[in-house]
Parts: sequence; C-alpha cells; structure tokens
Amino acid sequence: MLHISALEKLTHELSRLPGIGPKTAQRLAYFILRAENQYPERLSEALLRVKAEVHDCPQCFNYTDTELCRYCDDIHRSDESICVVEEPADIMRIESSGAFRGRYHVLHGSISPLEGIGPKELRIQELIDRIDDGLEGRGPVIKEVILALDADLEGDTTILYLAKHLQGKGLKLSRIAHGVPIGSDIDFIDDRTMGRALQNRVEL
Amino acid sequence: MLHISALEKLTHELSRLPGIGPKTAQRLAYFILRAENQYPERLSEALLRVKAEVHDCPQCFNYTDTELCRYCDDIHRSDESICVVEEPADIMRIESSGAFRGRYHVLHGSISPLEGIGPKELRIQELIDRIDDGLEGRGPVIKEVILALDADLEGDTTILYLAKHLQGKGLKLSRIAHGVPIGSDIDFIDDRTMGRALQNRVEL
Repeated sequence: MLHISALEKLTHELSRLPGIGPKTAQRLAYFILRAENQYPERLSEALLRVKAEVHDCPQCFNYTDTELCRYCDDIHRSDESICVVEEPADIMRIESSGAFRGRYHVLHGSISPLEGIGPKELRIQELIDRIDDGLEGRGPVIKEVILALDADLEGDTTILYLAKHLQGKGLKLSRIAHGVPIGSDIDFIDDRTMGRALQNRVEL
Repeated sequence: MLHISALEKLTHELSRLPGIGPKTAQRLAYFILRAENQYPERLSEALLRVKAEVHDCPQCFNYTDTELCRYCDDIHRSDESICVVEEPADIMRIESSGAFRGRYHVLHGSISPLEGIGPKELRIQELIDRIDDGLEGRGPVIKEVILALDADLEGDTTILYLAKHLQGKGLKLSRIAHGVPIGSDIDFIDDRTMGRALQNRVEL
C-alpha cells in the first residue's frame, strides 16, 4: 500500500467483504479514488440507507422495507403451504420458477456445528410457533411445509432436525427433489446426484 | 432482487465496481445487510474519508494525503532519475524490489486509442515540464528517465510516444527489461517473452 492512512483504511474495510482479498480490495480502493460523478458519496449513502430501511419481516423473516414483506402481504397467496428456505435470496429462485404460490419462512442459515450455528441461531422456533399458532387457532392453519434447503451437509442436517420437530403436527412435510438437472447431459452428472436421481425415480 | 429499493440501489452501486458483476454485488449487499459492528457505517465513512483526504501529489501525481508524496518529500532520494509508471500501485512494486532510489512520475494510464485515451489524458506534458524545468534551471536537473510501463500494446505505444518527445533533451532514456522471470521454467515461457529474452541477451 501507499502508506496513506485513508486509503489503507478503505482497503481494509473492503477486504472484509466475502470473496474480496487484499489485492482486490486495493484495486477497488484505487477505482473508488478515481471514480467520477460522486460515486463514493453515492455508494456511502446506499450503504447507510440499506441499513436504515431494510429489516426482517416479522412473520417470515424475509428482508423487507415495509411492515410485512411482499409475500406475507399478498392476499392472493395460499396460507396453507410454507416453503422453508435458508436465505432471502433463495425466495427469488423459487418465485421465478412460478411453481409455488404459498408463504415463505427464512431460516437465515442452516445448522452447522463446525461454524457454531445451532438451531437456536436460526429462525426455527419461529417456524414451529407459526405452525402451532395455526393448530391452536391463533393464526392461519398450515397444512404443508416444503423444505427447500441447500443440497449439502448443513442442509441435510437442518432437514433432519426440522423433520424431527415438525412430525406429529398433522403436516404434509416434504423436501424439494434432487436429481439430474433439466437439459443436462447424463454423462456429466456426478455419482451422488445420479444415485439420488435413481433412488427417487418417479413412476410413469 | 427482492424488490426492496434500498437493497437494489446498493446492489446497483456495488456492481459498478470493477470485476463485480450483478450476482456478486447482490451477495455483497446481503453480506452488508447482515454484517455486525457498524460495518456499513465504517465502510461508508472510509469511502468519504478517502475522497476527502487523498489527492494527487502536485509533483509526481502519486496519491498522497500530505502536500508532497513521501517519495517526492524524501531528501535521501536522488533527483537525477525519474521512474515513469502507469499507476500509483506500480510504485509499490518497484519500491519493494529495493532497486531504485530516485523519484517517480505517475502517468495515470497509458495511451489507448481504442479507449479514447490520448497523450492529453495522461500526465505526459507534466513529465516533459519537469524535465524542461531542470534544463532551464527552475528545478532539479534530471539525467535519467526509466520507463516502467506495462508490457502490453498500450505500454509500448506510450513508450514510443515518450521516446519521441523526450529525445534531444540530453537524457539517458531506458525501459525496464523484459525476459524470462527469475525462478521460472524455460519450458513454460511464451514465444514473445522468449523472443524478447533472446533479443535482449546480456553479454557475460
């Protein structure tokens, strides 16, 4: 670095972003220094604004800048199904498929003992409460819970935990299917995906 | 995106950074939203501070937060040699080699007709003025100019332009050597580098 304190500070802060190493952070800092049209001011304002305006939806924990998020607030969606996802960004993936018209519940992560994330760090109790509220007449009755979690060890652990705690509540509980992606060449599919695709074969 | 205006704005601003696409910008925006310890405030402050404190050194156009940059201000460095670089970051590369103890001159880019960058967009006239000032007794006499520009088409074009305009001023003018990097396997060197290494062979 050029031994300029303000530039070193900016590089340091930028290098805390995920996937941005010290070298990239330095390149970004130089870009910012040379950028025109009040770019640093605009980025700075956008940073403060996002923190001030965006909060978790109190019902599903998706991000929102209104009281309830747009999916909880939409009267045209079914209250009977909840799709459980790890992150708010996952909702967009599901929405753009157009295959689900129920409500969501965002866990904000998955159980990962290695990273010290247990069920208490996630919005799991809130999910159980939502289902119990329906059973006890304090909220809409939930008939189906679809788990759309990542297909990795943490996702699987979280699914096992949720399955254990949601059983016996009269719910239809499912996880999204794993198998060969549409349009892909069978020759290039890895062993575990192929194993799962065979195991979960669908009768015609 | 989640149709949240503040989040979309932040993603948009982040995606203007070099090497940050829309998908990465979205990931960064989510990270910032979840970050703790006043991270958005600190990053925001660092952005404003760098713009307020850092400016070009009036002599060599390196970045600085003091009147002259540390290399122009250092009385232990020789005034007789100037090393010309494209970007302030290049100075650090040269400094850490420990092989140069003169002054610097930062062009802030290289001649690139494709990108519409001509000699007038760079600090070339200022370099000529520095040399002329020495010749006419208004500043320190410069005896040697070393061109440490990138080994690409733009660097070569800039070197040709500078050579043309600096000739006849009684200077020792050179460019840094191109050849096989120290420690590398000759088998893996590309044709152009090897051609240059043979052409510029050093007599023993």
